[in-house]
Amino acid sequence: MFEAAELGRAVSKEDYKTQIPDLRAELLQMQFALSKTKHPVIILVSGTDGAGRGDVVNRLNEWLDPRGMMTVSFEQLSEEERERPKFWRYWRKLPGRGQIGIFFGGWYVDPIRDYAYGLLNKSELDNQLSQIRRFETMLAQDNTIIIKFWLHLSHDEQVKRLKKSENDPNTMRSVSERDWKHVELHREFETAAESAIRHTDTAESPWHLVEASDRRYRDLTVGRTVLEVLRKYLDADAAVQSTTKIKPTATTALPIAEHSPAATRTVLDQIDLTRSLDEKTYIKELEKWQGRLHQLAWAAHEKKISSLVVFEGVDAGGKGGTIRRMTQAMDARLYQVISTAAPTDEERAHHYLWRFWRHIPRAGTFTVYDRSWYGRVLVERVEGFASEQEWMRAYLEINNFEEMLVKHGSLLMKFWMHIDKDEQLARFKDREKVPYKKHKITDEDWRNREKWDQYGIAVNDMVARTSTSYAPWTLVAGNDKNFARIQVLKAVCKKLESMLGV
Amino acid sequence: MFEAAELGRAVSKEDYKTQIPDLRAELLQMQFALSKTKHPVIILVSGTDGAGRGDVVNRLNEWLDPRGMMTVSFEQLSEEERERPKFWRYWRKLPGRGQIGIFFGGWYVDPIRDYAYGLLNKSELDNQLSQIRRFETMLAQDNTIIIKFWLHLSHDEQVKRLKKSENDPNTMRSVSERDWKHVELHREFETAAESAIRHTDTAESPWHLVEASDRRYRDLTVGRTVLEVLRKYLDADAAVQSTTKIKPTATTALPIAEHSPAATRTVLDQIDLTRSLDEKTYIKELEKWQGRLHQLAWAAHEKKISSLVVFEGVDAGGKGGTIRRMTQAMDARLYQVISTAAPTDEERAHHYLWRFWRHIPRAGTFTVYDRSWYGRVLVERVEGFASEQEWMRAYLEINNFEEMLVKHGSLLMKFWMHIDKDEQLARFKDREKVPYKKHKITDEDWRNREKWDQYGIAVNDMVARTSTSYAPWTLVAGNDKNFARIQVLKAVCKKLESMLGV
Repeated sequence: MFEAAELGRAVSKEDYKTQIPDLRAELLQMQFALSKTKHPVIILVSGTDGAGRGDVVNRLNEWLDPRGMMTVSFEQLSEEERERPKFWRYWRKLPGRGQIGIFFGGWYVDPIRDYAYGLLNKSELDNQLSQIRRFETMLAQDNTIIIKFWLHLSHDEQVKRLKKSENDPNTMRSVSERDWKHVELHREFETAAESAIRHTDTAESPWHLVEASDRRYRDLTVGRTVLEVLRKYLDADAAVQSTTKIKPTATTALPIAEHSPAATRTVLDQIDLTRSLDEKTYIKELEKWQGRLHQLAWAAHEKKISSLVVFEGVDAGGKGGTIRRMTQAMDARLYQVISTAAPTDEERAHHYLWRFWRHIPRAGTFTVYDRSWYGRVLVERVEGFASEQEWMRAYLEINNFEEMLVKHGSLLMKFWMHIDKDEQLARFKDREKVPYKKHKITDEDWRNREKWDQYGIAVNDMVARTSTSYAPWTLVAGNDKNFARIQVLKAVCKKLESMLGV
Repeated sequence: MFEAAELGRAVSKEDYKTQIPDLRAELLQMQFALSKTKHPVIILVSGTDGAGRGDVVNRLNEWLDPRGMMTVSFEQLSEEERERPKFWRYWRKLPGRGQIGIFFGGWYVDPIRDYAYGLLNKSELDNQLSQIRRFETMLAQDNTIIIKFWLHLSHDEQVKRLKKSENDPNTMRSVSERDWKHVELHREFETAAESAIRHTDTAESPWHLVEASDRRYRDLTVGRTVLEVLRKYLDADAAVQSTTKIKPTATTALPIAEHSPAATRTVLDQIDLTRSLDEKTYIKELEKWQGRLHQLAWAAHEKKISSLVVFEGVDAGGKGGTIRRMTQAMDARLYQVISTAAPTDEERAHHYLWRFWRHIPRAGTFTVYDRSWYGRVLVERVEGFASEQEWMRAYLEINNFEEMLVKHGSLLMKFWMHIDKDEQLARFKDREKVPYKKHKITDEDWRNREKWDQYGIAVNDMVARTSTSYAPWTLVAGNDKNFARIQVLKAVCKKLESMLGV
């Protein structure tokens, strides 16, 4: 999840300076328009320690009009608060219609910290998160606009910043033992944060994961996101008054950054596509890992472990060839390959996840998915087959689905097969020339190619929202087919080995 | 909760016979219309052992067209099923759009039984119920119509039926040890069932609690409810195609029963309004319980226990007088009385529960509510101030709210002050005559009186959905003021005593 916020996204000083005046003017306009509506607004600023939550809250205070806005932070429980149910402190600070409340951490602070400190177990954490989800849903149903930010900082960056503060006599707040303790517990905090985001990332109140290493990028992204979300709600209100209802949802608005290409970097840009394997090494490695997979597949069968291996990727990204290299290694009784094409009539008559539930493998076998349930947030999103409301909902649904699989004891791996645009063009042309490959290239492939950037954004959101500790995405460098195939075979073997304890 | 299904509701043979032909014809028509829509339908039949779940399922099969319908029951997990995540067995049986699936117990069987057997603790049960709620919400968002019945049978009735079956050589299924075990565990089953209903009673898929002691009433109610819910959805679809969207919800449709007054009995009919106390006894009792309350209020203060005492009731039902008898007994520092009138501007700018969260008492004090958050499901429902969607949602919201209060350690009591229509008239007239009482009677009171029956239905639904093990409703026989006041004072004292362990 957090890998999507460690991309080195940054905005140049120049871009920042150019954009701020317009952004501020628009924010104020929007705030004014909002003040006359039925919507309370909650802007919840949460994130890693040291990511600059306080700075962001200050920035928002600077940009917005203080009338009709308040900042809410929660310190130690007061005596007054201890005497009431836990949520009392949040209720009393809720903004009214037309008002904005900026919540510093809000209701996420306690469960995340308590889990990291070992004061809550997983099941208690889940219960608290359900309670939060119910609370937010209740507010959203009452027209509250909830904008939740998670400001992420990598562990290394976190340590660096803390050291710098420690050596800086002018730092605002002195570095305490508590700060270092939190850094030590960074894994526990990250696990809790991932759970919190995953359980409460609903279509009504989605999270916006913001990379916080560059301050300008961070602040600009927060500002633009607030603006875009408010605009959507106000537009939808206007639409209701004319014809039908559009329920608005939101994703993170990227800053427009002419001079800062780093600002729009996606997880896909992190893939080193220059990596390759020469033919000789490839043949040796292929033999090695196929042999290993053969053994491991039988061992998993013995132990009744089911495996689900999902392949998604760019058209002509090499899914088919890689899948064949996997299945060649296995006994035919041990696997099935499911190619996900357009749904059948019967499938269309059910929930979109139904067709995938149908084919969940029995114990001890492999199911390989050539495309999968992720179609909902990729092609269906980009092509508009699913409404924004539908695909936004899908992240939570997919995470729940995968959690059930993993809790049941199945192995789940997800590969994104990536190539760059030039490589795709070369492969398309090659396919058109070779008679037995010709069927593999259609007009649709060429049409999809035109939406390259939109797919990039969709993949980035997908990784940000569904790469979980129990089912992470593996991004495969596919320009060199040899390298890609070995990367996948090796990853599958390693995962099986760790599951089987061999 | 279940007291609302122990009213002796019954339908005469004559009424039953008159209604069945029309009901069946309408059901078939509706089923036909439904088959062309985007809606899958799930009819889930659950309930107490012995309440006749099987009979109801058979009846529905008799009444509906078998094409496009299937009955689904879940026995022991098969080997196939054990090899997949738990929900796989439910997914594979989900009806498609335009089809009806009748689920015998469905996903509620396991958690309820496992909790009753002591295999799950409360927190695990809650987690499973959250999972179910997410599952149902997901289906509902995909246009599934979910109609859930809980057929209730009192413990006595359950034992009677089981004994009868045991002595009947012609009984379909022999009575087993398991049946007797479940009867023994009836309290545990009831606790689990109440939790299940409470956690999953959402506006998208509400429960219909059906009294099952009279077979004709039971079957007719189920049939009519199915009909009404389907009709609402189809009407809403038609409305969408014309102008704006109405999201339909549903409550239990009562059978029209000209010759069966018992069929429409509500919890209010169970109150014995003839009970009274003569003046002498009253004065003695009043002194006794007021003295006791005085002591107990201080003891609760000492132990820092907060008490919330809620009064709702018919206009002129005696709330004010009873509240005064309570507060007279207490030190003024120990209580506040909150009269709930129309919300202020500020309150209107927030969620309807916000105004009640504001006034939650500090530790060791009493808050007495003269009307309360129940306005949402009473006056706001009957007068149409809240949409059906809004007041249906409110039951779950209120139950969550009250659960938080009780979990925090507060004492919560809820009184419905009841009088009959004649007594109300007498009191209204009396008020109009007496100068210092005149301000208490307004045109609105007369208007409310015209909606007597609608309020009766709303109160019955309220008790059915919000009388929980941790915060039950007490229905007060109010025709005789003396009796009512002592009933309340005594109940408050008894509850305090048990909380304080004195």
